[in-house]
Amino acid sequence: MDILNALNWRYATKKMSGEPVSQELVDQIIEAAYLAPTSSGLQPFQIISISNKELREKIQPIAYGQSQIVDGSHVLVFASWDKYTAERIDFIYDHMNAERGLPSEATADYVQSLKDTYLNLPEEAQAAHTAKQAYIAFGVALTTAAVLKVDATPMEGFVNADLDKLLGLEEKGLKSAVILTLGHRATEGDWLQGMKKVRHPKEIFLTEIK
Amino acid sequence: MDILNALNWRYATKKMSGEPVSQELVDQIIEAAYLAPTSSGLQPFQIISISNKELREKIQPIAYGQSQIVDGSHVLVFASWDKYTAERIDFIYDHMNAERGLPSEATADYVQSLKDTYLNLPEEAQAAHTAKQAYIAFGVALTTAAVLKVDATPMEGFVNADLDKLLGLEEKGLKSAVILTLGHRATEGDWLQGMKKVRHPKEIFLTEIK
Repeated sequence: MDILNALNWRYATKKMSGEPVSQELVDQIIEAAYLAPTSSGLQPFQIISISNKELREKIQPIAYGQSQIVDGSHVLVFASWDKYTAERIDFIYDHMNAERGLPSEATADYVQSLKDTYLNLPEEAQAAHTAKQAYIAFGVALTTAAVLKVDATPMEGFVNADLDKLLGLEEKGLKSAVILTLGHRATEGDWLQGMKKVRHPKEIFLTEIK
Repeated sequence: MDILNALNWRYATKKMSGEPVSQELVDQIIEAAYLAPTSSGLQPFQIISISNKELREKIQPIAYGQSQIVDGSHVLVFASWDKYTAERIDFIYDHMNAERGLPSEATADYVQSLKDTYLNLPEEAQAAHTAKQAYIAFGVALTTAAVLKVDATPMEGFVNADLDKLLGLEEKGLKSAVILTLGHRATEGDWLQGMKKVRHPKEIFLTEIK
């Protein structure tokens, strides 16, 4: 039940203490996101880990002034592919086959079916799909942070286009999807701390068909 | 490092053994998804947990015949709201305030800002947003399954409209987003078992700005 205890312990921390998270713990959280599964193993996202204070100070106004951006120690930006391309799909499958000692023909038909599927979607639908994969990893990362007793604030509240510009994401074919800010909770001054965690009544949330 | 060991142990199981997962473990995995954070705490999704064999046999062809649907023991369908509505937003905030012993005025301005934001989005964008919240919980759930040594197959490969129809989701204002099938890995007959887990080279995946 340790993981459930951790998930009950975590909350969307509104005030961080300023005490930095050790790089070792941050590395583990990033590694967890790295290991997250994605659709067909395409892993269509990257993480930008920002501990640089000056850069975080520039991000803060883009995130509507949220204090955790500077009072935490690391801002993890989950940035997903703006679209699928044949090159991107080939790259990861070539890498996968090389790592597994398989010839590229081993996955040729499957790779072609992926291209047929994704490259024919409207670009907006491609971006929505890659973002969802980043969100899986985001869930994995925030669970890992909780287990490691690292506080984290999930953030969708920022101006995506401005952050993309600041970080030069567009040139890399990436779009900011969501942010996880890491730090340690302050002992005072957080209105949400100590509030009961509330979800929908379980009977609404869950339908069991046995 | 236990959680990283668990994430390295898990894989998208292609062949389940038929041995059922205990209900106690399934309950913990669902509880983890239930505790997952969502944007503004709206929790815009539900889980349908299906252990009923006959129903799983009907789902299998909708999921392109994937054997885990029947050889696993539980199919968790993550179903997200088709759109936001004033009633849905009011319901969760009224419930939250009641549980926290706060008057409804405590969140009135914030609730209004949520309505102003979400209800004015195109319905497609609303559905994309609710689905992403379900994907966070999906990441939390699959991490929890791994920690509990329960095998799980993440599945996007199914005909959403057909599953929605089979489960009567449209009448409930829900859309199937993604499936997590739970079971135990078979010892033989799974081509993916034992294959090296491959991700993008770390230097591509991660950019650190210190």
